Amino acid sequence: MLLEKIHSPGDLKKLNREELNILADEIRGELIRTVSHNGGHLASNLGIVELTLALHRIFDLPEDKIIFDVGHQSYVHKMVTGRMERFHTLREYGGISGFPKRDESVYDCFETGHASTAISAALGLARARDYRKESYDVVAVVGDGALTGGMCYEALNDAGNSKTKLMVILNDNEMSIAPNVGALSAYLTRLRISAGWQRAKRRVRHLSQIPVVGKPLYRIIHGTKKLLKTVLVRDGDTGFFEALGFEYFGPINGHDLESLEQTLTQAKAHRGPCVIHVLTKKGFGYDKAEERPEAFHGTPPFYVETGDRIEMPNRPSCGHVMANTLAEMTEKDDRIVAITAAMKLGTGLDHYAEKYPDRLLDTGITEEHAATMAAGLAAGGMRPYLAVYSSFFQRCYDQMIHDVSMQKLSVTFLLDRSGIGGEDGQTHHGVFDFAETLPVPGMTVLAPCDSEELAAMLRWTLTRDGPCVIRYAKSGAPLEGREGIPEEFQDGKWNRIREGKDLTLLAAGSMVKRALDTRKLLLEDGLEAEVWNCSTVKPLDTEVLAAIGPDRTVFTLEEHMLTGGFGEYVTGECRKHGWTEPALCFAIDDRFIPHGDHERLMQEAGLTAPQIRERILKFFPCRQVKKEMRIKG
Amino acid sequence: MLLEKIHSPGDLKKLNREELNILADEIRGELIRTVSHNGGHLASNLGIVELTLALHRIFDLPEDKIIFDVGHQSYVHKMVTGRMERFHTLREYGGISGFPKRDESVYDCFETGHASTAISAALGLARARDYRKESYDVVAVVGDGALTGGMCYEALNDAGNSKTKLMVILNDNEMSIAPNVGALSAYLTRLRISAGWQRAKRRVRHLSQIPVVGKPLYRIIHGTKKLLKTVLVRDGDTGFFEALGFEYFGPINGHDLESLEQTLTQAKAHRGPCVIHVLTKKGFGYDKAEERPEAFHGTPPFYVETGDRIEMPNRPSCGHVMANTLAEMTEKDDRIVAITAAMKLGTGLDHYAEKYPDRLLDTGITEEHAATMAAGLAAGGMRPYLAVYSSFFQRCYDQMIHDVSMQKLSVTFLLDRSGIGGEDGQTHHGVFDFAETLPVPGMTVLAPCDSEELAAMLRWTLTRDGPCVIRYAKSGAPLEGREGIPEEFQDGKWNRIREGKDLTLLAAGSMVKRALDTRKLLLEDGLEAEVWNCSTVKPLDTEVLAAIGPDRTVFTLEEHMLTGGFGEYVTGECRKHGWTEPALCFAIDDRFIPHGDHERLMQEAGLTAPQIRERILKFFPCRQVKKEMRIKG
Repeated sequence: MLLEKIHSPGDLKKLNREELNILADEIRGELIRTVSHNGGHLASNLGIVELTLALHRIFDLPEDKIIFDVGHQSYVHKMVTGRMERFHTLREYGGISGFPKRDESVYDCFETGHASTAISAALGLARARDYRKESYDVVAVVGDGALTGGMCYEALNDAGNSKTKLMVILNDNEMSIAPNVGALSAYLTRLRISAGWQRAKRRVRHLSQIPVVGKPLYRIIHGTKKLLKTVLVRDGDTGFFEALGFEYFGPINGHDLESLEQTLTQAKAHRGPCVIHVLTKKGFGYDKAEERPEAFHGTPPFYVETGDRIEMPNRPSCGHVMANTLAEMTEKDDRIVAITAAMKLGTGLDHYAEKYPDRLLDTGITEEHAATMAAGLAAGGMRPYLAVYSSFFQRCYDQMIHDVSMQKLSVTFLLDRSGIGGEDGQTHHGVFDFAETLPVPGMTVLAPCDSEELAAMLRWTLTRDGPCVIRYAKSGAPLEGREGIPEEFQDGKWNRIREGKDLTLLAAGSMVKRALDTRKLLLEDGLEAEVWNCSTVKPLDTEVLAAIGPDRTVFTLEEHMLTGGFGEYVTGECRKHGWTEPALCFAIDDRFIPHGDHERLMQEAGLTAPQIRERILKFFPCRQVKKEMRIKG
Repeated sequence: MLLEKIHSPGDLKKLNREELNILADEIRGELIRTVSHNGGHLASNLGIVELTLALHRIFDLPEDKIIFDVGHQSYVHKMVTGRMERFHTLREYGGISGFPKRDESVYDCFETGHASTAISAALGLARARDYRKESYDVVAVVGDGALTGGMCYEALNDAGNSKTKLMVILNDNEMSIAPNVGALSAYLTRLRISAGWQRAKRRVRHLSQIPVVGKPLYRIIHGTKKLLKTVLVRDGDTGFFEALGFEYFGPINGHDLESLEQTLTQAKAHRGPCVIHVLTKKGFGYDKAEERPEAFHGTPPFYVETGDRIEMPNRPSCGHVMANTLAEMTEKDDRIVAITAAMKLGTGLDHYAEKYPDRLLDTGITEEHAATMAAGLAAGGMRPYLAVYSSFFQRCYDQMIHDVSMQKLSVTFLLDRSGIGGEDGQTHHGVFDFAETLPVPGMTVLAPCDSEELAAMLRWTLTRDGPCVIRYAKSGAPLEGREGIPEEFQDGKWNRIREGKDLTLLAAGSMVKRALDTRKLLLEDGLEAEVWNCSTVKPLDTEVLAAIGPDRTVFTLEEHMLTGGFGEYVTGECRKHGWTEPALCFAIDDRFIPHGDHERLMQEAGLTAPQIRERILKFFPCRQVKKEMRIKG
């Protein structure tokens, strides 16, 4: 196998054209093999094989710098920069990350995870190079989807003005996670068929002769040709990038190594900022992924032959329940509108769109705009629900405060993937959302213990006015023994779901289940824990807190950072009133949690039931001694 | 006076052309009179007089909606929508706000304050209108400066795609707060002299005949004419907006009511989204402001005749000290680079630029990009210092976590205007920054008690690696009796600046001075308070906290929200170790603080020395009784 002999990018430069094509095939095979086993991002990596090889042949890493926007398309880059041997550990705990990581390799010069940051970072690196009178090249690889994010535009504007040498590769696969939305997308389509059209047409004649690449690409280019008749195109209309001061190269066939290398060489010789427009196809070379690129964007393990997902334990997702509930509500209340920032599938809103396609607004990768647009909808009398991953919600922090909360507008933020995520790692954990929202005046902050409570909360939001945040984990399996939780959600009222004479567990959201598990373990130690489902985190249930006796030992549990979280919020409130404070707050200590299996990461954070039990026992020395004697005996 | 007779926009529609010109003059007179007395935003309001009048004549408010981006240019709008009588209370506590406020008038449909939000909000309103089958018009008034913010672009892209009827007025005055930076600015200049050039040229001939307006405008247009020779212009190059799906109208003379009304009428009849490009001049009609529009952007009270500022008590600003210190450091360390997001003057970095023009990067109104670009600079071996108002720092919350902190990059965020601001009101207070930064792993969070300590902290940042946040108030008057504070800053070490046997005050940043004042008052009650300058908020000085005896009464003081703030952070740490916890945390309770004089707002927040004394006395009942007896006796 050729791939086994590639230990660094230097090895790529020794290969001839034919070997490179073989290598590309081998890489695709490895991508499919590993991702089908470990899960991960497939379609985008299949689409960027040739581009990555060409980049490493034309540029000299690690001196030259390549920044992959979002970063989930860096698998090929990892394979050819000395990480092939460990590639089978992709996304596993302690294994290769699914994103660029500086402490993983000197070839990863800048970490990414959230979209639209690469041009900004590249401009910073390029400016640092100029200040330090160095001479390396800086390349940002950005998808056309990421280009819907405003940061890219801020960076292009600044870079265009700076005249700094900087290359932006526009990896145009006509879809980000979901098919691209927005006027820019239409513009790129026009560009695709105008400026470089003549050149592309010439090239296309030879395409069907290139072994693997030919036919499908011919199909794409042929497809866009039809648009020529329907879209008014001024020839040579590259005004968008040129207006911003960028030299424009392309569009070029992103699966044709020769033209890629030619154009990159040309661009490398250019002195100022430039854009290289590369057309690629997501899922290229694996028919299942080409047919359903969205399904193979981020995928769980699957059977290579059929493309079917390997059966996982059937856990209903909170997102799905959310979407169905929202659809039911929309039947009765036509003020409802759902919003996603390019995450229709991830948030479950595709199920909503099936019933109410006109009521789902997909704004592109634009959390900032989406939140303020939601504020506008609310000011106009609608009831907007913005579903967004908790970690991406960080992008609209100011808009949440400035545009929604200060005006007391009835926007509901639905924060999916709250708490510790999993294989995507630190950039995707949702562990700051309490800290973001609890200090905000007038904000209601909710954390359902399961998907049924989430549905009840959603229905409740229509009964009142003002901003609201509901944070929930991906999995929404109904709690066992949820009798204590009323069908109709009551804000500010916690539910005692288990009685217990010895201690009190105040649990928020996903930790209610862990509290119940902990209770079971503690019974073995002869301790009976009372368990509260603290589903309204702001405002706290002060009646419950006030009623806790001074001799009671209280613990809080949350899947969130300790600082600024639920536990500290409870402590502050109790302190203020002189009520019994928590003896200990279970939460994530002051550190970033890496990638890996969710359960393994919970263990790392000290939040599994056995770990919680151990620490609680220290507050009951006699029981601990008893237990130790039992064990020894 | 005509202006006195304008009680609602309807009254404007009854005026003839001549009366309108007189009214415009009267409005300018009132603007200058009120702002010269109260302080406020002058240049932008002088520039938008005719545009505001034209908008109110062509559209029917409050049915139609106008959103002013940023909002500090809404004074004229306020004057003609029934708020003239109260206009003299502008920016005073309890008076008219300097920004649109929904609870102030039904004519203010959406609140603004931070830049680049208006198009998003307008699109939300327009969509709400369509869903509800209503028919009003929605207009966003956006300056060319705000257009450097990525949110605008996200919104334009979404709006262009939606085909929703929506008008964006591009109020192009060639400068935002500082002269515009970026490639877009150059593009608009080209546009200004191409597409509408022929029309503008025709109009310009008549301009010098218009009484007040004529001459200065002739000067602007004449000035841009020179550019024709130096910039390559393709005629009719409006590709930028058209690419985004917007119909383009203009450019038109923003001080010519007739063409404004004509074009607005045309645009109103257009069915989809459109942009109306209006050329205005900041400070128009007041020569001092025309000459120095930056100085008259936000201005303290001034003498109308000379334009000189009315002398204020001489308080050295922290920003100025910061800039000078940074310049001193740059002499010795060429890794230093300063960054501002279009706030060179406000942050004091103009003083830095005087010495190191090449070391100051002004990125436009782009906190998101600025933070990630800083991360790139740091990754490239530089030491970037991003100076930004605390409330605008909210815009780069995710970038601070995702791009800077996760990579442990040595970026220093300098948060000016921290704590309660003043006359600008709730959108401009910097009261969330502890809550934003304390939960972030690896972040160092500092709060100097005065400008001298700020300088020492800045010098210290070069001695270590990693991300750092320094939050400070605008005023940086050196503390009286600062002997306890060493010249060289030591991170993680609090300084006891006053001894005291009866109680302990732990004060952060600006509250150290208040703690000293409180100490003086408490001496009258026979209580001796120990005062600590807690300048490192993260990591806390655990040695000091551990040493506090269990019988001691401890209070924390901060100019920040209670939730997520310094006091709760101290409480959490003490709780964890079983140390003496604060008896009470002085901070801002769960509410937004309005606009007004800073001292008045501090009183509203309960943070003045007499208020703090009163609440502390309740913890010492005997002293309180003694004091009351003294007063009665």
